[in-house]
Amino acid sequence: MIGSVALVGAGPGDPRLITVRGLQLLRSADVVVHDRLVDERLLDEAPPHAVRIFAGKACGDHAMPQPEINALLVQWALRGRRVVRLKGGDPYVFGRGAEEAEALRAAGVPVEVVPGVSSAIAVPGSAGIPLTRRGVSSSFAVVTGHGEGGAPVDWARVATATDTLVVLMGLGQLGRIARDLIAHGRAADTPVAVVRAGTTVDEETVVGALQDIEDRAHEAGLTSPVVIVVGEVVALRHVLTAARESAAAV
Amino acid sequence: MIGSVALVGAGPGDPRLITVRGLQLLRSADVVVHDRLVDERLLDEAPPHAVRIFAGKACGDHAMPQPEINALLVQWALRGRRVVRLKGGDPYVFGRGAEEAEALRAAGVPVEVVPGVSSAIAVPGSAGIPLTRRGVSSSFAVVTGHGEGGAPVDWARVATATDTLVVLMGLGQLGRIARDLIAHGRAADTPVAVVRAGTTVDEETVVGALQDIEDRAHEAGLTSPVVIVVGEVVALRHVLTAARESAAAV
Repeated sequence: MIGSVALVGAGPGDPRLITVRGLQLLRSADVVVHDRLVDERLLDEAPPHAVRIFAGKACGDHAMPQPEINALLVQWALRGRRVVRLKGGDPYVFGRGAEEAEALRAAGVPVEVVPGVSSAIAVPGSAGIPLTRRGVSSSFAVVTGHGEGGAPVDWARVATATDTLVVLMGLGQLGRIARDLIAHGRAADTPVAVVRAGTTVDEETVVGALQDIEDRAHEAGLTSPVVIVVGEVVALRHVLTAARESAAAV
Repeated sequence: MIGSVALVGAGPGDPRLITVRGLQLLRSADVVVHDRLVDERLLDEAPPHAVRIFAGKACGDHAMPQPEINALLVQWALRGRRVVRLKGGDPYVFGRGAEEAEALRAAGVPVEVVPGVSSAIAVPGSAGIPLTRRGVSSSFAVVTGHGEGGAPVDWARVATATDTLVVLMGLGQLGRIARDLIAHGRAADTPVAVVRAGTTVDEETVVGALQDIEDRAHEAGLTSPVVIVVGEVVALRHVLTAARESAAAV
């Protein structure tokens, strides 16, 4: 009998931010294929007998090529297994979840896509930065620092299109991105936050302006993965930063 | 002793899409203040003794003015109660969650913000439309149809800034929005989907192009709330639409 694959969003980092449906599927999985950014405590929620397979994928460093991941998911499902493909954030926000769903559909494998809390929204939020705020921001855009699949980001188009701009996977190009945004009309003193490991106990935030954020992030020694937020909402941080409880087990 | 308020994202509709942390807080709440879009089955998860207060708020139809909601949250917390403010989607994506958090912080009330699965991402996903897809879309923007807090959306700026555009609360202005997008550079045959009640058993999707989506949505008799998705990713729908399980209880 044919199995199934659930593409499950693991959320932004804190394991308690997986959805109830996602956890339910994880707890009845025979096979879990996961990314690097997924918390160990989530993997522990799968049954003891479940096969755990690390598929890598963080910031361009692929432990396994995408066609191989697709084939792996199809093969385990055709062997009758209930497979959970556990992906950081939301399966359909970057991360090639759509390609995996397409491959599975093409192979006739039943697919369920379970959305997750996206890092693009929740990581700024955890740092006290709402993407929208009446009178401050009524729109936001989300891009990656390196573009996706060879299509470079058109910074001229996105620079001033929305009040808030979120850049994922952008730490390596932070200086260039900031200069491009200034060159295309964003004020040099626009507030910027760079949030590392958002929603986890290791969360760390560096705040500056477009003109100095590269130096500040460098001085702080920030490492990937980070979420970059550009816009006046960053200035709300001092009002909204609450002491977060440390991320506990699910 | 002072209580606390958790601003909890209830997710996009299906009650199983609340986070584990959100459900945990809901199950130990003394008071639940909720929006119209929150599923009854989630309210049933609060303890029997919990006070349930409907604060309204859907598409400009406010059952209770915002300052009154803020005051209500503060008052119950100052009376020592554990309050859960349950909001559709994510608390920091429109919906004035930032204002509530600010009011609570100003009053010295401990606040925890628990992100939710945003309708802006999950509703298109449920209809088989990923916001990003390698080679098709590497960026998306999210706006509301009516602007937020009096600031109208600048359609000229957002029309072509990102590959995918998501419009929340836009059904009433659908024709005008489509015409504005065409006027500002989007091709008239750009695919558009309008998804009503996404992720729930009542989910309904109407697909068209910018030039005819108003007529199609009207013919189908769609009612609010809807999520509008504009861009080539809409064409992936026929590949990615899987039979969804009906939304079961948590």
